[in-house]
Amino acid sequence: MHHQKSIEVCLTPALLNLYDTKNSIVVVIDVLRATSSIVYGIDNGATAIIPVAQVDDCLAYTTRGFLLAAERNGEVVEGYDFGNSPFSYVTEKISGKTVVLTTTNGTKALHMAREQAHQVVIGSFLNLKSLCDWLREQERDVLLLCAGWKDNFNLEDTLFAGAVVSELRKDFTHFDDSCVAAEDLYLLAKDDLRGYLHKSSHSHRLAQLNIEEDVKFCLQLNICQAIPVLVGDELVLLKN
Amino acid sequence: MHHQKSIEVCLTPALLNLYDTKNSIVVVIDVLRATSSIVYGIDNGATAIIPVAQVDDCLAYTTRGFLLAAERNGEVVEGYDFGNSPFSYVTEKISGKTVVLTTTNGTKALHMAREQAHQVVIGSFLNLKSLCDWLREQERDVLLLCAGWKDNFNLEDTLFAGAVVSELRKDFTHFDDSCVAAEDLYLLAKDDLRGYLHKSSHSHRLAQLNIEEDVKFCLQLNICQAIPVLVGDELVLLKN
Repeated sequence: MHHQKSIEVCLTPALLNLYDTKNSIVVVIDVLRATSSIVYGIDNGATAIIPVAQVDDCLAYTTRGFLLAAERNGEVVEGYDFGNSPFSYVTEKISGKTVVLTTTNGTKALHMAREQAHQVVIGSFLNLKSLCDWLREQERDVLLLCAGWKDNFNLEDTLFAGAVVSELRKDFTHFDDSCVAAEDLYLLAKDDLRGYLHKSSHSHRLAQLNIEEDVKFCLQLNICQAIPVLVGDELVLLKN
Repeated sequence: MHHQKSIEVCLTPALLNLYDTKNSIVVVIDVLRATSSIVYGIDNGATAIIPVAQVDDCLAYTTRGFLLAAERNGEVVEGYDFGNSPFSYVTEKISGKTVVLTTTNGTKALHMAREQAHQVVIGSFLNLKSLCDWLREQERDVLLLCAGWKDNFNLEDTLFAGAVVSELRKDFTHFDDSCVAAEDLYLLAKDDLRGYLHKSSHSHRLAQLNIEEDVKFCLQLNICQAIPVLVGDELVLLKN
């Protein structure tokens, strides 16, 4: 008999301790902008992206010829090569390179996820379809972990979780309340994701940071095939 | 100039530490069924309802002639007068009485809220309008605290938070992402709240407990005027 697969949405890393993920695949979601940039970077041939917790942790890697990327509160940290704008993760800059990355929310969620999960992969609108195709084939429960904003709920990560639920609904049998909410919000927003996000607090924050082009980029569906997977301390291309 | 009032939704008690509530009114929400029963009980003339954390804490009150109400995992604890079914909180049983109540989620949220908040009141669909009319008149920020289910998100409390946001949208100026999500889910669900909740995990749990009549009761709008308010350790009728 087929395994009865469950899919759940953890709305913020602060709730991750409520889930048992040791046999699950955890999808880390920080669509504006960390996980979009990670997907784009791996898709563009980056050898690896190493998520580190603190800005200072990046410095340990300076002598090894790695690119250093640090973002805090939505901005590039002074003195670093770049932050988490996807436009920094283009082939010319990144192919064959290893990037050491720290971000406000995304890397924290990644580190929490790897403590216990069977496997940790990276999701974004950019690789929605290839991610879902792969999840569909695994005989594993799935937890969609929204990085949120400073441990609290945010709309954009929830919308992406809802997109995954919507895509996988027929292939999974168990859903939690967060799945229902996320999917319904996605269905409401999907014809105009950007317009919908303008209702949110994040959009005000993002508008101030002048990253409208980044947002537009990160809300594109299925322009990448790559699924980054965590192996040891490094995010690398998942070989199907 | 008018105070710029903010309204926020805390989706579970596990996220309460992210909010500064010392100048705010916190509305505790556990619509299935604790806060519905509290509103109904106070509306029906209960002198006070005392929320306690543990089932054993109720026992300290046995000699004082109080009614003892204890619910765990949706069921009345053996040996107690009643749990949190609203049908126990009718005038004949409750008028002039004090009830000591412990529930899985609601009393925990209440205790957490009172640690810091300026004022703690009780919300449910039963008193939606009178609650919103009152909140509108206060020069205070508002935090809508969903009791959730064992520290995690649930749909029914979020829907009620959304109903409050929807009602108060014109009177407040600042909203967070959770407000947007809660309001949109409410607008989606409001014409058939019960049907909508049947999509949720809670409804399966509730169906097993055979409390469909309770659910139907708790989803009625505006059948009560009372706003219970926490004064010391007791929930009593707010005098406008």
